[in-house]
Amino acid sequence: MMLQGLSVDSSGPSFTPLVVVELVSDAKEETIGWLLNKIRDQQHDGGAELLVEQLGPGVGAQEKENPNLFLVGATWQRLLSGAEDVGLFKESTDGSMRAFTCANKHNFKDFGGDGDGFLSMAECQYIIKHELDTLRAKDETHVPGYKQAKLYPGKSIIRRLLSKRILIQIFPLHDKEELKRLSFSWYKKVKLSLQPLDDIRHYYGEGQALYFGFLEYFTFALVPMALFGVPYYLFDWEDYDKYVVFAVFNLIWCTVILELWKRCSASLAYRWGTLSRKKAFEEPRPGFHGVLGFNPVTGREEPLYPNIKRQLRIYLVSLPFVLLCLYLSFCVMMVYFLMEGWALSVYDQEPTFWTGVLLFIPSIIYAVVIEAMNLIYRYAAEFLTEWENHRLESSYQNHLVLKVLVFNFFNCFASLFYIAFVVQDMVLLRQSLATLLITSQILNQFMEAFLPYWLQRRRNKKMIRKVQKRRILEDKELPLAEQVRLEADMSTYLGTFDDYLELFLLFGYVSLFSCVYPLAAVLVVLNNVTEVYSDAFKMCHVFKRPFSDPAANIGVWQLAFEAMSVIAVVTNFALIGLSPQVKTYFSDSETHLILWTVAAEHGLMAFKFILTFLIPDIPKHIQIKLARLEFESLEALKKKRQLHGGIISWKLRAESGSGSTHRPLRTAGCAGDSVLCKTSFTTSSPLPCVVKTGFVQ
Amino acid sequence: MMLQGLSVDSSGPSFTPLVVVELVSDAKEETIGWLLNKIRDQQHDGGAELLVEQLGPGVGAQEKENPNLFLVGATWQRLLSGAEDVGLFKESTDGSMRAFTCANKHNFKDFGGDGDGFLSMAECQYIIKHELDTLRAKDETHVPGYKQAKLYPGKSIIRRLLSKRILIQIFPLHDKEELKRLSFSWYKKVKLSLQPLDDIRHYYGEGQALYFGFLEYFTFALVPMALFGVPYYLFDWEDYDKYVVFAVFNLIWCTVILELWKRCSASLAYRWGTLSRKKAFEEPRPGFHGVLGFNPVTGREEPLYPNIKRQLRIYLVSLPFVLLCLYLSFCVMMVYFLMEGWALSVYDQEPTFWTGVLLFIPSIIYAVVIEAMNLIYRYAAEFLTEWENHRLESSYQNHLVLKVLVFNFFNCFASLFYIAFVVQDMVLLRQSLATLLITSQILNQFMEAFLPYWLQRRRNKKMIRKVQKRRILEDKELPLAEQVRLEADMSTYLGTFDDYLELFLLFGYVSLFSCVYPLAAVLVVLNNVTEVYSDAFKMCHVFKRPFSDPAANIGVWQLAFEAMSVIAVVTNFALIGLSPQVKTYFSDSETHLILWTVAAEHGLMAFKFILTFLIPDIPKHIQIKLARLEFESLEALKKKRQLHGGIISWKLRAESGSGSTHRPLRTAGCAGDSVLCKTSFTTSSPLPCVVKTGFVQ
Repeated sequence: MMLQGLSVDSSGPSFTPLVVVELVSDAKEETIGWLLNKIRDQQHDGGAELLVEQLGPGVGAQEKENPNLFLVGATWQRLLSGAEDVGLFKESTDGSMRAFTCANKHNFKDFGGDGDGFLSMAECQYIIKHELDTLRAKDETHVPGYKQAKLYPGKSIIRRLLSKRILIQIFPLHDKEELKRLSFSWYKKVKLSLQPLDDIRHYYGEGQALYFGFLEYFTFALVPMALFGVPYYLFDWEDYDKYVVFAVFNLIWCTVILELWKRCSASLAYRWGTLSRKKAFEEPRPGFHGVLGFNPVTGREEPLYPNIKRQLRIYLVSLPFVLLCLYLSFCVMMVYFLMEGWALSVYDQEPTFWTGVLLFIPSIIYAVVIEAMNLIYRYAAEFLTEWENHRLESSYQNHLVLKVLVFNFFNCFASLFYIAFVVQDMVLLRQSLATLLITSQILNQFMEAFLPYWLQRRRNKKMIRKVQKRRILEDKELPLAEQVRLEADMSTYLGTFDDYLELFLLFGYVSLFSCVYPLAAVLVVLNNVTEVYSDAFKMCHVFKRPFSDPAANIGVWQLAFEAMSVIAVVTNFALIGLSPQVKTYFSDSETHLILWTVAAEHGLMAFKFILTFLIPDIPKHIQIKLARLEFESLEALKKKRQLHGGIISWKLRAESGSGSTHRPLRTAGCAGDSVLCKTSFTTSSPLPCVVKTGFVQ
Repeated sequence: MMLQGLSVDSSGPSFTPLVVVELVSDAKEETIGWLLNKIRDQQHDGGAELLVEQLGPGVGAQEKENPNLFLVGATWQRLLSGAEDVGLFKESTDGSMRAFTCANKHNFKDFGGDGDGFLSMAECQYIIKHELDTLRAKDETHVPGYKQAKLYPGKSIIRRLLSKRILIQIFPLHDKEELKRLSFSWYKKVKLSLQPLDDIRHYYGEGQALYFGFLEYFTFALVPMALFGVPYYLFDWEDYDKYVVFAVFNLIWCTVILELWKRCSASLAYRWGTLSRKKAFEEPRPGFHGVLGFNPVTGREEPLYPNIKRQLRIYLVSLPFVLLCLYLSFCVMMVYFLMEGWALSVYDQEPTFWTGVLLFIPSIIYAVVIEAMNLIYRYAAEFLTEWENHRLESSYQNHLVLKVLVFNFFNCFASLFYIAFVVQDMVLLRQSLATLLITSQILNQFMEAFLPYWLQRRRNKKMIRKVQKRRILEDKELPLAEQVRLEADMSTYLGTFDDYLELFLLFGYVSLFSCVYPLAAVLVVLNNVTEVYSDAFKMCHVFKRPFSDPAANIGVWQLAFEAMSVIAVVTNFALIGLSPQVKTYFSDSETHLILWTVAAEHGLMAFKFILTFLIPDIPKHIQIKLARLEFESLEALKKKRQLHGGIISWKLRAESGSGSTHRPLRTAGCAGDSVLCKTSFTTSSPLPCVVKTGFVQ
């Protein structure tokens, strides 16, 4: 844990601040005091037992600074018990990953008595966030000082404060030292090595690291295709007949890489301890509203919203809206084809250089329009999904992803499908694909690399101005107060959604149509390499540090990519069926051609599903490790039960020989029993009964 | 538990016998004594702590009776602790299903102090079987008296005795009283009601009950199709054009019923407590052999067999063998078509009544040959799968099911596919389907209803002879010794494999081709109704009682039926494409016809997969109950941890203020802590710490 760079310079006992809580600047004293007490109180009084301090004013505090910034930290013991609460998995001394428990803490690798380096800063921050989130109202009916901010027993206080905008934000602090090291190894040195995934996970958590892992995996998976594509492109530029081999290669490739990624992902998730980690019970989203009632699962009072209403909103409003948008997108596509036809007719009349350039203009305009429509639609989808009022964040995310994916897929690929299968013009398809791909890449790189760079420069300037104003510091490090305020002003990272979406569309371009434009894979590889750098840069320098997210896989995106690979199989077979090569072979009967294509497609589809069954999702050595853990816990339980069964029968015997015809049991001597007790206590893992006994009495 | 009918009439304290263990008649005294001691010994001495008695000689013991029959029972407490060992789920007083623990036994419904009626006899027998199976060798190197029967620490004794044929069989006893009641309510009364599934489960266990549940569900699911089919058959007999509607109905039907069955099955499994029951760690099969080594999961010494060798056997021997069998089956099919052609030519030359009958002869012969080939192949498949040397019974079963399914599918349906899509003769298809279906049903009913009836009569005669010989009994009940010997001679029930296989093939006939022969559904319904009766009869009177099998679903068969439904979608669309109706519609272009058919098929397939996602596998109300259980255990764990965390920090504080900069925690008073302790002990479920403390000291 590299926290030495930060220390609170206000009065009071010092602690390492991990998380910042920012309240609105005009928050009432009463509210602040109440919240701070909640955070500081002992756990059995309903508090979080954390340490919290108000951030002192900046050095040059002439500006209208928000005074209500609070730094939250925790004692070492509190973090350990929190790690147990959130069910953190850590590497134990025998090399396997186990759920951390305070009772067995010395069985974990790297556990020194002082705990330095055992929990990463990201983990500590995640624990603190979890503890803050689970701060629950007891008997308050509203937030003190804010009558409109209703509370009920069991309601998460932080979520209520957030939804009523009394709390502006909670964010974890960056660690300048570690960030510097990370960004150096990540993107600053001239790199012939892989990304430092373990370091990324250490700093940003598993969700981020899995994204970068997937990005890297995807890039490497594209390399053989790119290598295969270049000679194709160079030597067969005008020979559209030869693409059958490429299409076959393509559809096997996209099946295999997704299966292998599952194994990669499982390996990573096991190494990072998230593979078998149990998910905590999910709380309602902050924005969720409804009539107060009792949750049938928890028995807690919370807002309930009838599922039927949500279904009605989804099927009567959202679905028609999505269909309308798809229709709109279709209309735009038709306009594009009109423009395309007009440009072509102009070129045919006057085939000069400028009319040649004009040929590309409609595609470029269309690509820009597509990107703009995707962006606008994204906001509409977010608004609609919010309005659907999903209870859980995961369900909200799934519905949002589904909406956005369907539209983006249609918007980006409809014109290509139209050209390929209705117009059946492979030259136009190639040209359209190239224009779409290149334009959207340029746009994306602008949004992701240039914009961040510009933001960073603006931030730098601001910082320099501040430093010039003060000029009282000798060292180059900013004081904590300045540093915290600087980070509070950084933009918030909105998760990996857009990054995955971009990869999804690129995967689509490659897997669907790259057989007619083999350079696509090369372009995507180039894009991905710059993507790594620009993403890394924006993570390190543009955004607030995000809370880590203990993901075990890439979630709904795995499904999305697999759906795309199924579509790719169908598309590639259709393209094969259309290829002149195959058509010559079946020159006598078109019917035979189609039937054979369909039969081959069904065969490959069946093979694909069998492959999915045959390739285990989790590598063998990890399966064995997981099974061993399972087995050990079963054995421990059995031992506990045997002991316990002994007690029960002993008790029954002692009480009476009540009823029944059983033969009196031969009871073992007391000495034997107590030996059994001891072995049972030392082997069964989560039973610190002896310790407890010592404490209770 | 209705055990009053049985009581040991030998000397010694009486107990209710549940399970019979039969050793070979020339088993050595030494071995018997050792085994009995193992069974009787206390658990912490490595025994099973069960009650066991030798069965006395029969009344008229002049015959060469095997003296080595042993009755095993257990005390009531031992059964309860065994129920905890096997992880039995029981209904608790609040209506939800929970894992039974002795500590919380009074929280379970129907738990009287004397335990009558709490555990069913089938459950008791399952528990005893589990306890016998987990009797492990300690330091013996071989079975006493049998040098060739090697043992090693941790080897299951019973499995070794079985594999060395020293132990002939272990089987649970029937309960005459309950069996009489069950068979009356099941199949003896004229029935307008459903099968008594709960009673079946109570007597035979969950695996059996799920089979009968599925059989019933499948029959009811066929009723609408049968109702739809009869008018079709009656009014459109010669109008082959009209089958398109039926095909569409067919393919929607087979998609929906399988999805709904999953929900039904989950409901049943929840009610019976097997849905969330954890599987115990699987032991190697009795027949598994290999070089002694250490299991990487358990760390126990056991035979290991390299996976690569098994894979080689599978891919280099089994796979070619299966392919060879398929080729053989194909040849037989071709011979059938030759015969068919010859019969047709004879009929064409002389169209008399007898040559008309001759037309059906090839189909009938073919159907009989198919059944015979299936039977022979079945033995070959069992031999091969045994030889593949799978470590786990489940893996053995999966490989066997796969082999048998592929062959049976090909064998039964190849000719139909050939006629439908190569010959494209719908009249012949209809005729073949009818002959195949009816012949195989008659054969099956013979094997399943007549044969059992004949066996039963033979058994009855034997029984009467015995009774006549003795004539010393006044009551009609046989004495225990006779009863046990009678049951020991009954044939062993080999599981639900063949029953499911039969249903699978029937499902195939209906879902694949019933659109050309709508009466198929009616025939299958009739078959299923008689199937219920004959299966019930054979379960009650022909076979030894099987051990109950705590299944949560129909396992690999769900997958098999789903695969069949996918094939059904493709087949039905192909049939639609071939129908004259559709052909007339696309009379201008065959290409368009095929393309539209393929497009519609892909659409429906996509819809089918989306449906699989949309229909939750577990009904909402059960999901809520499961989530509540999960939530409660999480909460209990959290409480335990909070308490524990308190202790840890208390301990740390007591030890030293070692390292770091943390602020001393405000510690709560001791009184508060001990109150917390108490609540924690009463709420956290499996922690009878107070009891234990009392025992240890």
